Amino acid sequence: MDLVFIAIVLGLLAVVYGFVTSRQVLSSGAGNEKMQEIAAAIQEGAQAYLKRQYTTIAIVGVVVAVLVFIFLGIIPATGFVIGAILSGVAGFIGMNISVRSNVRTAAAAQSGLQQGLTIAFRAGAITGMLVAGLALLAIAVFFWYLVGPSGHAPNSREVIDGLVGLAFGASLISIFARLGGGIFTKAADVGADLVGKVEAGIPEDDPRNPAVIADNVGDNVGDCAGMAADLFETYVVTVGATMVLTALLLKGLGDLLMPMMALPLLIGGACIVTSIIGTYFVKLGKGSTNVMGAMYKGFLVTALLSIPLIWIVINVALGGMDTVIGGSTVTEIVAATDGTNLAEEGLSEQIGGFTGWSLFYCSLIGLAITGLIIWITEYYTGTNYRPVKSIAKASETGHGTNVIQGLAISLESTALPTILIVAGIIATFQLAGLMGIAYAATAMLALAGMVVALDAYGPVTDNAGGIAEMAGLDDSVREKTDLLDAVGNTTKAVTKGYAIGSAGLAALVLFAAYTTDLAEFFPNADVDFSLENPYVIVGLLLGALLPYLFGAMGMTAVGRAAGDVVKDVREQFAGDPGIMAGTSKPNYARTVDLVTKAAIKEMIVPSMLPVLAPIVVYYVITLIAGQENGFAALGALLLGVIVGGIFVALSMTAGGGAWDNAKKYIEDGHHGGKGSEAHKAAVTGDTVGDPYKDTAGPAVNPMIKITNIVALLLLAALATG
Amino acid sequence: MDLVFIAIVLGLLAVVYGFVTSRQVLSSGAGNEKMQEIAAAIQEGAQAYLKRQYTTIAIVGVVVAVLVFIFLGIIPATGFVIGAILSGVAGFIGMNISVRSNVRTAAAAQSGLQQGLTIAFRAGAITGMLVAGLALLAIAVFFWYLVGPSGHAPNSREVIDGLVGLAFGASLISIFARLGGGIFTKAADVGADLVGKVEAGIPEDDPRNPAVIADNVGDNVGDCAGMAADLFETYVVTVGATMVLTALLLKGLGDLLMPMMALPLLIGGACIVTSIIGTYFVKLGKGSTNVMGAMYKGFLVTALLSIPLIWIVINVALGGMDTVIGGSTVTEIVAATDGTNLAEEGLSEQIGGFTGWSLFYCSLIGLAITGLIIWITEYYTGTNYRPVKSIAKASETGHGTNVIQGLAISLESTALPTILIVAGIIATFQLAGLMGIAYAATAMLALAGMVVALDAYGPVTDNAGGIAEMAGLDDSVREKTDLLDAVGNTTKAVTKGYAIGSAGLAALVLFAAYTTDLAEFFPNADVDFSLENPYVIVGLLLGALLPYLFGAMGMTAVGRAAGDVVKDVREQFAGDPGIMAGTSKPNYARTVDLVTKAAIKEMIVPSMLPVLAPIVVYYVITLIAGQENGFAALGALLLGVIVGGIFVALSMTAGGGAWDNAKKYIEDGHHGGKGSEAHKAAVTGDTVGDPYKDTAGPAVNPMIKITNIVALLLLAALATG
Repeated sequence: MDLVFIAIVLGLLAVVYGFVTSRQVLSSGAGNEKMQEIAAAIQEGAQAYLKRQYTTIAIVGVVVAVLVFIFLGIIPATGFVIGAILSGVAGFIGMNISVRSNVRTAAAAQSGLQQGLTIAFRAGAITGMLVAGLALLAIAVFFWYLVGPSGHAPNSREVIDGLVGLAFGASLISIFARLGGGIFTKAADVGADLVGKVEAGIPEDDPRNPAVIADNVGDNVGDCAGMAADLFETYVVTVGATMVLTALLLKGLGDLLMPMMALPLLIGGACIVTSIIGTYFVKLGKGSTNVMGAMYKGFLVTALLSIPLIWIVINVALGGMDTVIGGSTVTEIVAATDGTNLAEEGLSEQIGGFTGWSLFYCSLIGLAITGLIIWITEYYTGTNYRPVKSIAKASETGHGTNVIQGLAISLESTALPTILIVAGIIATFQLAGLMGIAYAATAMLALAGMVVALDAYGPVTDNAGGIAEMAGLDDSVREKTDLLDAVGNTTKAVTKGYAIGSAGLAALVLFAAYTTDLAEFFPNADVDFSLENPYVIVGLLLGALLPYLFGAMGMTAVGRAAGDVVKDVREQFAGDPGIMAGTSKPNYARTVDLVTKAAIKEMIVPSMLPVLAPIVVYYVITLIAGQENGFAALGALLLGVIVGGIFVALSMTAGGGAWDNAKKYIEDGHHGGKGSEAHKAAVTGDTVGDPYKDTAGPAVNPMIKITNIVALLLLAALATG
Repeated sequence: MDLVFIAIVLGLLAVVYGFVTSRQVLSSGAGNEKMQEIAAAIQEGAQAYLKRQYTTIAIVGVVVAVLVFIFLGIIPATGFVIGAILSGVAGFIGMNISVRSNVRTAAAAQSGLQQGLTIAFRAGAITGMLVAGLALLAIAVFFWYLVGPSGHAPNSREVIDGLVGLAFGASLISIFARLGGGIFTKAADVGADLVGKVEAGIPEDDPRNPAVIADNVGDNVGDCAGMAADLFETYVVTVGATMVLTALLLKGLGDLLMPMMALPLLIGGACIVTSIIGTYFVKLGKGSTNVMGAMYKGFLVTALLSIPLIWIVINVALGGMDTVIGGSTVTEIVAATDGTNLAEEGLSEQIGGFTGWSLFYCSLIGLAITGLIIWITEYYTGTNYRPVKSIAKASETGHGTNVIQGLAISLESTALPTILIVAGIIATFQLAGLMGIAYAATAMLALAGMVVALDAYGPVTDNAGGIAEMAGLDDSVREKTDLLDAVGNTTKAVTKGYAIGSAGLAALVLFAAYTTDLAEFFPNADVDFSLENPYVIVGLLLGALLPYLFGAMGMTAVGRAAGDVVKDVREQFAGDPGIMAGTSKPNYARTVDLVTKAAIKEMIVPSMLPVLAPIVVYYVITLIAGQENGFAALGALLLGVIVGGIFVALSMTAGGGAWDNAKKYIEDGHHGGKGSEAHKAAVTGDTVGDPYKDTAGPAVNPMIKITNIVALLLLAALATG
């Protein structure tokens, strides 16, 4: 239990870092009156968004919590509430910091690039540490409470169901935040452009356009609140699922049970320490303007320092690296089976003995995957490499060829990450079976604090540039914020690649939890998960369909919500001519509230898809072909969602990032530069990439995991009901 | 054996129909001198294409044939050669007819719409009947030879390997024809537009542009030769795999063995008769211009007449509809197992007794799936429905929104076909196990003659319109060819939907052949195909990656090949100013030959992907984790290709068709009509959709099946080697 306390302390450390750093950031200068006025409008908009979004989520959350309570009892319901609330808190605080740091970044950039970078990155780091810290606290404290004061065994059903409930709460918030945020940001973006640039003929960042503030709010909604909720969820799900797997798979551990349950928490805690240290290394070299290099320096320090620290915590938890886990304790299971029952046989393999060293190597593989995915994503979305350059070149021959090349790149970009994930699965499975995959995923997620910091930095600099522009600051300021912002585009893309890669591994861990849970709940069910079972094929096909359908809904939703924005802005212009004249202030909050309403309305149906699909598929197949085939089809559905979803998500996010930067590359003076025909084509590609990378693509992550978690809850409900 | 003779006779009937009808078509008037001159240029180009394409394929084919002979022996090698040659013959004759009928259609349209329709549809029907007839003959004659003169048992290894070799030959031609043709047609299209319309400022169908003829040739290369090879292959694979499954799954059939082996051939033969009858019902009502209605009338007659005919052939073959197949003969297998060996248990289920009625109902389901897929595809690509209209509407707000909405539709369009296929799998499996799925696929493919007729009609009318335009015929003629051509767009899209749906089912049958073949070759291998086996997950992920990578390669290939076209045309213009002046004829054959060369060069690497991937995955996983996991990963790879490929292919073909018709819809006077901003946006969408629907999407079909067939061959080679 001492180990859990250590994890709790380290989680609190992250929260303390958040508070201290936010004081530092907020105490820095907020610029002149004009800047503060614009920033206030964005803050006002953000408040309007947060209020309505969280009100709606709260209503849905209460309903779901009651359902979880009725079907599964008080512990999972409590877990659900904790997961939901803390996920909300992380996003809420993060966004509040973000919309206050943008103007301070612009102000600091007046003094120098390093000053601007410091404010912007620290703002991101606050969100990052809160995500990792609160996620770790949620699991650790809840686990401590269940095992300590409540007196449940660490591997009891109560603890398992509680952790699954916690993950469900986080996931539900996450899909709302991701999808709602994604629709919001792109609807505001597209809507503002259509009615402002096209109809009214005013420039892009004009404060007279009521939707422009919604656009700025949207940046934060998507890449700060949305990503925070996404990675909070992935963190909770991954660490939680690793603990659940430990409880389900590793029987008869004796004294090692408690340390093994606490170990994922400790790894998370250790990496919070290294992440905090890493943030202080995000500094430009003397006279250097290599902002991306500074970022990577911070990330690299975190990753490298994590290696010895993970070694230490494994050593401490297990009492030595050579401690054997599983090995001899499971020989009786192996001996008891005749070798023909595949489920049992699989089980015995999975727990067939590994050491602390195995878990250490698996964690290293997780860190390596993180680094390589970041590198691959940068290759596909950075302006220095073939993919983006090829899209820029294709823009010379028109809109069509730009889009074709962008689509080709988006398809291609799935290859290396997939091969990397496959290699990771094979290597970690060889080292420590399913637990190996789980530890790789845990190590990946342990870096979430640092990675979210990189991502949440994006909207701060994006807004800072907008504020500098609107407030008419000196061109040299805008140049600096542009430098900072260009990096933001890359870090945003990179974080999405990381989020999807880690979500893929996390989902595999969840799938393993499903099959082991099934074996525990229904020991007599002879479920045939073989590919030769047609219901497995049916499940795979239906599962792979979900991300497609979900993506289609997300993309059409953006179109419809943008239409609502256009209508509202037209009304405001017509109702008060003073807005265009610049004599009266447009009602920013009204537009923001409207986009929020539209986004929330549009997100309901797609969000229901991953919640209802597993339930419907299970009952329909059970009705047609019996419960065992129902379980088989449901399991296959889960894997189908993962297999299908990874490709949809990877291709959309990388493709979108590549289009975005191809436009930037042309704007930097290549292929004719700004205003050329190539630039127009690149703008089209960027528009296409927007809902790809900011709406549909990233929302696939929580969708994959919700499907898996609902299946776990369904099993629990079926077993108890 | 009498039953096989009947099938052979019916196959010959199709060939006879082809010869008779081609005489009819070729004897009709070929228009004035100008028309004939243009048509001659297209024919010349087609010859150049066919010559080079088939020369290259022949070289590759000989090499592969030798490899098949070395590793697998003379019978599979013979099958390979027969499959390859007859597939080539079907495409060759079809294309020759097609490029002779276009000008005759234009000439006939001068007399009236019905006259034009008759010529164009008959031209298509020739290709269609040759595809179905030659495919049926290939299997039936080869099977007859092996079982009759050679004296092998109908379910012997020789027959099985021979049929697999036959399928491989057809598939290899098919992927070359599909991918090469797809790259050719779109490279010529895009290249001609870029250098003609954009650079030289001459209109789209101007005979001075050397690439314009390549563009016209390309229509035939893609939708006539490409589709013919594709469906020839799917036909051979499906009927062959159904026979292979019969031989592998149904042991101890006694007197029923031969009839059961011949039954798929008979169903194919029966539907050739109904397809021929159906072609005579493609007639316009008095004064009607509903060309699509006439087409559907023909298809409906074929489908409805097939019902009683299939009933008759099952009745005749099995000696009554109540004849039980499998049932009692396999009880000993069931009794011999203890119920824990999943592979054996699955086997006993699969052959656990079904009657002629079961097979009849499964065949009906296959016919129903065909009809419904056609209907769904028309919904997603027709100008009368929401999807196309929504894209057209989105064009009003620009290029970006057009593409976004098109992508959303392309994602969405996968849902209904998938659900349909899933429902088909469940229903047929409930009726007759794996054999049920195989019979549904066989019935689907049995209609190939009629469906290919609808498709091959497309390029004929497309070219007819171009010829009418270039030859300066009266506007009333162009109006008629436009009416005919508009339908061609829909039939081309519809056929692609059908090809992918049937390919999906065929691939499942192939996958079943893989698993049963594996059990037969390696009875002691305890291969764990369970989703709980991480190597299965690895296989699924890698399999699902293949269509993405393949699609990316196909799409970039179009861009590069189009670049070559631009260069060639520039050279021709520069070298002979008389071309632009209209005094000398451009060297059409040179451009065509160049596009052919470029297309062939570009198709090599992607074609190798499905051939090498199964081999590499098997050996790598075997090296890491042993042969049993190698087999498991390979099996999962096959299923991953199917699951991933269906979605990529469906979304690309439907999306491309929808973009195409959204442009047509605007050109018909909606949203501002031709020349409006909406139209420009729609042109962009159409350009994007082109390589989607004509290059990458359709080529996924043969890719899926090649992967599966290579796996079957690998098994055979491993077993004998």
